[in-house]
Amino acid sequence: MRRMNVDTVFRLRFRYMPGQLARVAQTIADEEALIGDLRIVRLGEDFTIRDIVVETRDDEHTRRVEQKIRNLPDIALLSVTDEIFEVHKGGKIASHSTLPLNNVSDLRKVYTPGVARVSLAIQANPALAFEYTSLGKSIGIFTNGTRVLGLGDIGPTASLPVMEGKAALYDQFVGLSAIPVLMKADTVQEMVDTIMRVSPSFGAIHLEDIRSPDCYAVEELLCKQLNKPVMHDDQHGTAVVALAAVINAANMAGISLAKAKVGQIGLGAAGSAIARLMMAYGVQEVDVTDRSEEATRWLADMGARVSTLDEIMGRCDIVLAATGKPRLIQPESVRKGQVLFALSNPHPEIDPEVALAAGAAFASDGKSINNALAFPGIFHGAMKVRARAITPAMKIAAAEAIAAAAERGEFVPDPLDRSVHQRVSDAVAATATREGLANTAQP
Amino acid sequence: MRRMNVDTVFRLRFRYMPGQLARVAQTIADEEALIGDLRIVRLGEDFTIRDIVVETRDDEHTRRVEQKIRNLPDIALLSVTDEIFEVHKGGKIASHSTLPLNNVSDLRKVYTPGVARVSLAIQANPALAFEYTSLGKSIGIFTNGTRVLGLGDIGPTASLPVMEGKAALYDQFVGLSAIPVLMKADTVQEMVDTIMRVSPSFGAIHLEDIRSPDCYAVEELLCKQLNKPVMHDDQHGTAVVALAAVINAANMAGISLAKAKVGQIGLGAAGSAIARLMMAYGVQEVDVTDRSEEATRWLADMGARVSTLDEIMGRCDIVLAATGKPRLIQPESVRKGQVLFALSNPHPEIDPEVALAAGAAFASDGKSINNALAFPGIFHGAMKVRARAITPAMKIAAAEAIAAAAERGEFVPDPLDRSVHQRVSDAVAATATREGLANTAQP
Repeated sequence: MRRMNVDTVFRLRFRYMPGQLARVAQTIADEEALIGDLRIVRLGEDFTIRDIVVETRDDEHTRRVEQKIRNLPDIALLSVTDEIFEVHKGGKIASHSTLPLNNVSDLRKVYTPGVARVSLAIQANPALAFEYTSLGKSIGIFTNGTRVLGLGDIGPTASLPVMEGKAALYDQFVGLSAIPVLMKADTVQEMVDTIMRVSPSFGAIHLEDIRSPDCYAVEELLCKQLNKPVMHDDQHGTAVVALAAVINAANMAGISLAKAKVGQIGLGAAGSAIARLMMAYGVQEVDVTDRSEEATRWLADMGARVSTLDEIMGRCDIVLAATGKPRLIQPESVRKGQVLFALSNPHPEIDPEVALAAGAAFASDGKSINNALAFPGIFHGAMKVRARAITPAMKIAAAEAIAAAAERGEFVPDPLDRSVHQRVSDAVAATATREGLANTAQP
Repeated sequence: MRRMNVDTVFRLRFRYMPGQLARVAQTIADEEALIGDLRIVRLGEDFTIRDIVVETRDDEHTRRVEQKIRNLPDIALLSVTDEIFEVHKGGKIASHSTLPLNNVSDLRKVYTPGVARVSLAIQANPALAFEYTSLGKSIGIFTNGTRVLGLGDIGPTASLPVMEGKAALYDQFVGLSAIPVLMKADTVQEMVDTIMRVSPSFGAIHLEDIRSPDCYAVEELLCKQLNKPVMHDDQHGTAVVALAAVINAANMAGISLAKAKVGQIGLGAAGSAIARLMMAYGVQEVDVTDRSEEATRWLADMGARVSTLDEIMGRCDIVLAATGKPRLIQPESVRKGQVLFALSNPHPEIDPEVALAAGAAFASDGKSINNALAFPGIFHGAMKVRARAITPAMKIAAAEAIAAAAERGEFVPDPLDRSVHQRVSDAVAATATREGLANTAQP
């Protein structure tokens, strides 16, 4: 059974007698909803108040469950709150002072007159900004909200909860300070101009949820003009985690990745980045297909072989799909022993169970390819050694570190395991240093 | 004696015998430097290691003290560190997650898939962004670094320590989340375009250290186009605190402020804002003078009387000066019973002691007029009630609250007293509500 999307907290008051909870649980089950946490809120003399988290498919489903619970005799429904909205109340990030401000001496150091000397020192030697300001660990997460999750163009303001989520992950996983920057900007030129203008504010630039093909040009132009790490996460974060998963899957299937034929179906932001990273990794034969000729021509120029869906399914040892088209891949087209990653969310191109039943050696969907495994460690590693860019070799090092951190039998590790991000960071920093990029960043 | 600017930590190893510390203290005194904190770092069998904070005028002064200490027999100088730079190391602010991320359930709520529903709700009703994101308490502190403290045009990167200082004050004084945004932008149009483009990122816009006259146009254009609080602190923060000080000084001197003649010498960002706020407060006669005809004409259009330095000194009951010109005001021009605020930092237009000796009833310099008393509470109050603007009435309410919070005999209260900011916030919020501005802000 798939996980459901909506978590609702029902606060109920029960009479103190056996069988009450069972009745509620059965009512929820009858509506095909699931039960999450159960918390006792209050124990009275002759009553109990409980919060029950109910998982439903959508708001309509929640309303049906609510109606049924309201109809139960002897059980009072005190409140219905949406757990997700409760969690997001007030936002998910805040900027804090790292120093106390308790007396005049603190104030004179942190603010005027003390601060003037720090400013003058940075004016004389701008690289000191990495030492004496937050620049060495601050990331701007830039978006215009034109391609947010699977929701499409919802605009900058509505994308803020997603950007705050990314910022929360940066803090929790690697202790970096990330700030969402929402842009009212429709064109590549407007985005680049805006980001260039405010770029001194941040030590690195994370691009997020910008529609393709705009995202390619924005990233390329910024990388040319800025001497600090710039990365579009929807492309490269996803590609790094996909490569990690493919490294492990190839290993399990006994396939040599360098000699394997790898097929990429769909060349949007994620798909094209996956194909490019596979080639950078050393995969000799990368087949690609997409309905956009512009996209296939671009990949062909980089050395990919333009192909068709049927050819890829027939010929490739490892196939990745990122098309947004549910059930695009027919079970009868699956080749015996094939490794399949159907990455579209929430509905993959082929259900992993179906692919396995059809003879695939290994199959997975997009839920395991969580790019939260990649971006925190990549930026942390690049910024730690003050690299002026994030190179393909650094991305490959990140993918190998993620692959190595997976438990035996798993494609990728758990993103909540903080040590994974440390390993990614170390690998990226070491690679940047080997490439001569250490201490090349400029404010 | 004036406070000195440079705090240096000398780490010394003393032999364990009487008179050692006295020798060091006398050596420092002989060089006319001051001693701050004394901390014991380590107690050995026959030695003691101490950190001694030494206050000096400048780096040259510090070097002379260091040389004399090095020459002392039996005392080893282990290290010399600049206390200010130590404090600023790594920056003064950081963005943190307000929620834990310990298990998959946390991740599913904070990030995908839970976050998608919050984004969709905001897309349908943008005002929900104030509820379910950090927008309701986030402020962008925008600067292009063209007029930073008394340092002039040091550029955006070198201004970051100052902006971080302001952000630290926002967090510590009122719990708002402020983010420095450094702009590579030279013209009014570039600044306005840039701020407009990223304005969805913040619930309010704090403008800082932008040279005049650019600062007037930038603020005016933004106020017209944005339905959220916008304020240039160098103008209005300073004006609000100056008005608060003048309210108290007039009271102490037994002068009715509304009927008094108030003179403003110097019409830069701070001076012109002071003159305008005095008129808004109800002062009937406001005399102004500046070498810029553009500045005096602007103030004349608003009802001020264009005057000269001599006329103002001869005629006005209360005189404020903000010219940047040390000793501009001659003692013989001071009128008996006059109230004088010579605001230029670090060297005022007339020393308060000199003004008092010349017959002034009350006199003060710029150090007491700390705008950290104003901006935190003003923005907090405006944002609390979701006002779409900061009006003159709200600034006057802030000034009155600051004046009321001062102890008897003081012009202004201590900015480290958190209750002051709460009082300012309450007064501003109440005024915004009375003006019908509550809940008029838009994301």
